[in-house]
Amino acid sequence: MPHAVSPLAPTSLAELPEIAGLRIATAEAGIKYRNRTDLMMMVFDAGTTVAGVFTRSKCPSAPVDFCRANLAGGKARALVVNSGNANAFTGQRGREATAMTAEVAAKAAACAPSEIFLASTGVIGEPLDAGRFSHLLDGLAKAAEGDRWRAAAEAIMTTDTYPKVATRTVEIAGVAVTINGIAKGAGMIAPDMATMLSFLATDAPIAATALQAMLRQAVEPSFNSVTVDSDTSTSDTLLLFATGAASGRGAPAIEDAGDPRLEGFRAALGDLLLDLARQVARDGEGARKEIQVTVEGAASDQAAKRIALSIANSPLVKTAVAGEDANWGRVVMAVGKAGEEADRDRLAIHFGEIRVAVDGERDPDYSEAAASEVMRRAEIPIRVELGLGTGRWTVYSCDLTKEYVAINGDYRS
Amino acid sequence: MPHAVSPLAPTSLAELPEIAGLRIATAEAGIKYRNRTDLMMMVFDAGTTVAGVFTRSKCPSAPVDFCRANLAGGKARALVVNSGNANAFTGQRGREATAMTAEVAAKAAACAPSEIFLASTGVIGEPLDAGRFSHLLDGLAKAAEGDRWRAAAEAIMTTDTYPKVATRTVEIAGVAVTINGIAKGAGMIAPDMATMLSFLATDAPIAATALQAMLRQAVEPSFNSVTVDSDTSTSDTLLLFATGAASGRGAPAIEDAGDPRLEGFRAALGDLLLDLARQVARDGEGARKEIQVTVEGAASDQAAKRIALSIANSPLVKTAVAGEDANWGRVVMAVGKAGEEADRDRLAIHFGEIRVAVDGERDPDYSEAAASEVMRRAEIPIRVELGLGTGRWTVYSCDLTKEYVAINGDYRS
Repeated sequence: MPHAVSPLAPTSLAELPEIAGLRIATAEAGIKYRNRTDLMMMVFDAGTTVAGVFTRSKCPSAPVDFCRANLAGGKARALVVNSGNANAFTGQRGREATAMTAEVAAKAAACAPSEIFLASTGVIGEPLDAGRFSHLLDGLAKAAEGDRWRAAAEAIMTTDTYPKVATRTVEIAGVAVTINGIAKGAGMIAPDMATMLSFLATDAPIAATALQAMLRQAVEPSFNSVTVDSDTSTSDTLLLFATGAASGRGAPAIEDAGDPRLEGFRAALGDLLLDLARQVARDGEGARKEIQVTVEGAASDQAAKRIALSIANSPLVKTAVAGEDANWGRVVMAVGKAGEEADRDRLAIHFGEIRVAVDGERDPDYSEAAASEVMRRAEIPIRVELGLGTGRWTVYSCDLTKEYVAINGDYRS
Repeated sequence: MPHAVSPLAPTSLAELPEIAGLRIATAEAGIKYRNRTDLMMMVFDAGTTVAGVFTRSKCPSAPVDFCRANLAGGKARALVVNSGNANAFTGQRGREATAMTAEVAAKAAACAPSEIFLASTGVIGEPLDAGRFSHLLDGLAKAAEGDRWRAAAEAIMTTDTYPKVATRTVEIAGVAVTINGIAKGAGMIAPDMATMLSFLATDAPIAATALQAMLRQAVEPSFNSVTVDSDTSTSDTLLLFATGAASGRGAPAIEDAGDPRLEGFRAALGDLLLDLARQVARDGEGARKEIQVTVEGAASDQAAKRIALSIANSPLVKTAVAGEDANWGRVVMAVGKAGEEADRDRLAIHFGEIRVAVDGERDPDYSEAAASEVMRRAEIPIRVELGLGTGRWTVYSCDLTKEYVAINGDYRS
């Protein structure tokens, strides 16, 4: 299972500060992996609000169903996440596993099961024996500490080669508040959502409905604009918890997502989500290069996004990037198959700062050497100008290498 | 460029009989490849009708534009095909190349340029110098012979590892008629169309409008149900020529696609197209296994097709098949992401004759050993029962191997 760390990993991991109002603990439950943590519990103070977005799969996992139901209450007291088994397509036994886990977690956190949130990641279709870890939850709740963010990010990894963490600090009405986030990704990564699991928390006092509105908006240009392999997980879960502890330092309670005092928070949330989402793309299974596809001049932003995803998901574009081949003809192919309005004879394509095609044919000044120099970099920006309108979107992805095939050819067995 | 012949290649190639009313010649024009043929010309007797279907790409190649315009006339006297360069995204120079080729071919075949059909396959975006081969066309037209079908199939290959040929003989009103077909595929293979190039010819006397109606119908369950990598070429072209020579042996002229005398012909055409389409899938770049995905019990045939394509195009399903891993959970994932109606708790999944999942969870009698035995075969049938309606479709594909990445990482350079 262990694979070499992605060459696109951050050179140093961000240090995440504590968020007042929550504590974290992890454990080695031995669900599938040996000699590593695979269970994470986050315990929240009373009053913590929660927002979430989930996979659009028609076959969601049992924990996704469970979280969707509890999200309506808007309140959270604990989060329990396991790696190694997704508890997806596990039928009645899967529902029993989530119910049992929630009951034990609720006792440990002294709350109702409706205030528990669950996530599972790993193999699909194998029954999850919650008994393997439920006996650990009471101890985890007691042992939880505020400074365990890095340990939390490590416990939720599957084929990830590095933990994904990010933090931002920003002011609401002059009071500093913090947002921390962790994520895991690696494969089965496509919108919507782009990651399998991501958990954010802030000490800002924000009502659940406002939190939900902000999260739904912020996820579009970030997690919903990342793709590794066009496959969508049954388990994708992004949860944002707000403990409200900063109200003790004078932060005002915010009820409305449109409140102008949220301007900085909104920007920081979007920035942090994009940071985590790009970390996921850069740790795509087998990834050696990040691809940033920007489509401009489309009929609409949505058209630009669809064309950008068509390029970013094309196996032929992704293998060309892996081979450091400036094969812009395959970009044309991917534009053509997207199904959106495009005029072949107006297209211009840039690899990095090099314009390789213009007005529907190879750039008159095209230099194979200059284009190849761009392709040797770790980050490959591909920009397509359609010349039709003002629609614009950027999508983040990675190359398709032999390692992706190797990793996924023997993941389960 | 040369890759090992696909392990799924036919053990022996069909011998294609001559079709009266047409002659074939090939040449080494040196457009890109060395020491192999890369130019093919087919010359038809006066009275030959033609039907065609093309890529749905919004960025079609210059030859596709050219053929679409000429198809309205319904008459064909010559076909010129080159491999090594697709003449796609080549702007004004691309249009000049098709016009010049057509003019020279029309002189060679003593007809109008509107009776010429052209196809090009190979690299996109590089100008095609028609001068490299136009001087050869007159000699090809003179040298053409009826028994060169295998040579024709070889001349149009790119990364194909074997030529694709098929033939059927059937009766129209008691008179035997023949349909021959050749195809090339290998990569950038997804509906619609599934192949890059395929050319069929028959001696049956069938009007162009009837031919077109039959072809459009027959292509749906065959070439439009094959996918290698979900990428759609700018050059996909399928042409069907009918010389009508069998009328000399008493075959009646058919004007209407609904004519009951076409029943056998229609079936044979569909059968031949599926044969060629499966040959394309079995020679998908790097392919070592054929995947046959059947979805049953869908809300409609179209829903079944979309779900089957979602499974067949999933990189995670395709790499699992490459790794001989009976990872049916990824099939569930691909059903879930297809966007069509599905009820997780009614799903049943079969690998070959082994039912691996039923009623939304692993089959109670599931045997890893039995499922693994199926995965070791060269042909992997995956069958999904949705339990919702009567919609049904089958899609043909292949596995995703490291060789696909290797082939496409250095195709152009």
